[in-house]
Amino acid sequence: MATTQFTMQPIGTAHTPFRDTSGIPRGRGATHTAEGVLEILPELEAGLDDIDGFSHLYVVWVFDRADGYDLRVTPPTDTRMHGVFATHSPRRPNPIALTIVRLLRREGARLHVAGVDMLDGTPILDIKPCTSSIPVDGLRRGWLADAERARRG
Amino acid sequence: MATTQFTMQPIGTAHTPFRDTSGIPRGRGATHTAEGVLEILPELEAGLDDIDGFSHLYVVWVFDRADGYDLRVTPPTDTRMHGVFATHSPRRPNPIALTIVRLLRREGARLHVAGVDMLDGTPILDIKPCTSSIPVDGLRRGWLADAERARRG
Repeated sequence: MATTQFTMQPIGTAHTPFRDTSGIPRGRGATHTAEGVLEILPELEAGLDDIDGFSHLYVVWVFDRADGYDLRVTPPTDTRMHGVFATHSPRRPNPIALTIVRLLRREGARLHVAGVDMLDGTPILDIKPCTSSIPVDGLRRGWLADAERARRG
Repeated sequence: MATTQFTMQPIGTAHTPFRDTSGIPRGRGATHTAEGVLEILPELEAGLDDIDGFSHLYVVWVFDRADGYDLRVTPPTDTRMHGVFATHSPRRPNPIALTIVRLLRREGARLHVAGVDMLDGTPILDIKPCTSSIPVDGLRRGWLADAERARRG
């Protein structure tokens, strides 16, 4: 398995208000309400048929400006280190990111969405509908909940 | 952008009860309760630190036995075609899959989880914690809700 590789090509590009990472709200209390456009390649536009009916979409994209990875990272939400797979850090073995956005409207191959948190020009690998929701009361949030409690004092 | 490529390598392998796709529950009313093990490469084990605190994880994996893609597909839940990005079909431009699993326990580099829906031996690209939940009443489910209503008569 060590030699297995998978090659991915962008299906499109995200247009967002964020020119550099310092502008992206992050950490505790960050609200991702920024609007942006997911522009899909014209030759893939038919793949968007009927996507308008979904309120929320998963966007799988690439941290294309991340360079390398760390196994343990200190997220902006905490002062302690955690395993990278217990965080959404960009410095991960495969620089894959996942964002849930709210679909505002579709214009041909352009999806207008709210909740973007990626840099302008970010390559998109996939879009999928959110078809189910985890019950809020069944969700445990590990170190993140601890860090939030600690900061609230 | 047409020539941009991203190369991904598995971070581990999923061990599941499913030897072929016919055994995987799918479509309307399918419940994904099957248990499995996500075995992460030993050299990446430190990346799992503190993951135990999270009840639900996103698993990003590869439909490694899918061959090519279709822009319009007929999902098992419906009799009509839909754009591939409005479905979770394996035949997508980048064969990336996303499953939310419930973490039962961690044993070193092995995560015992419930809710697997991938074939045994499937390569895993990434694992992330689920840190928020979409409010159920804010979720619209497009053609899927229509198809469910139609079948209920």
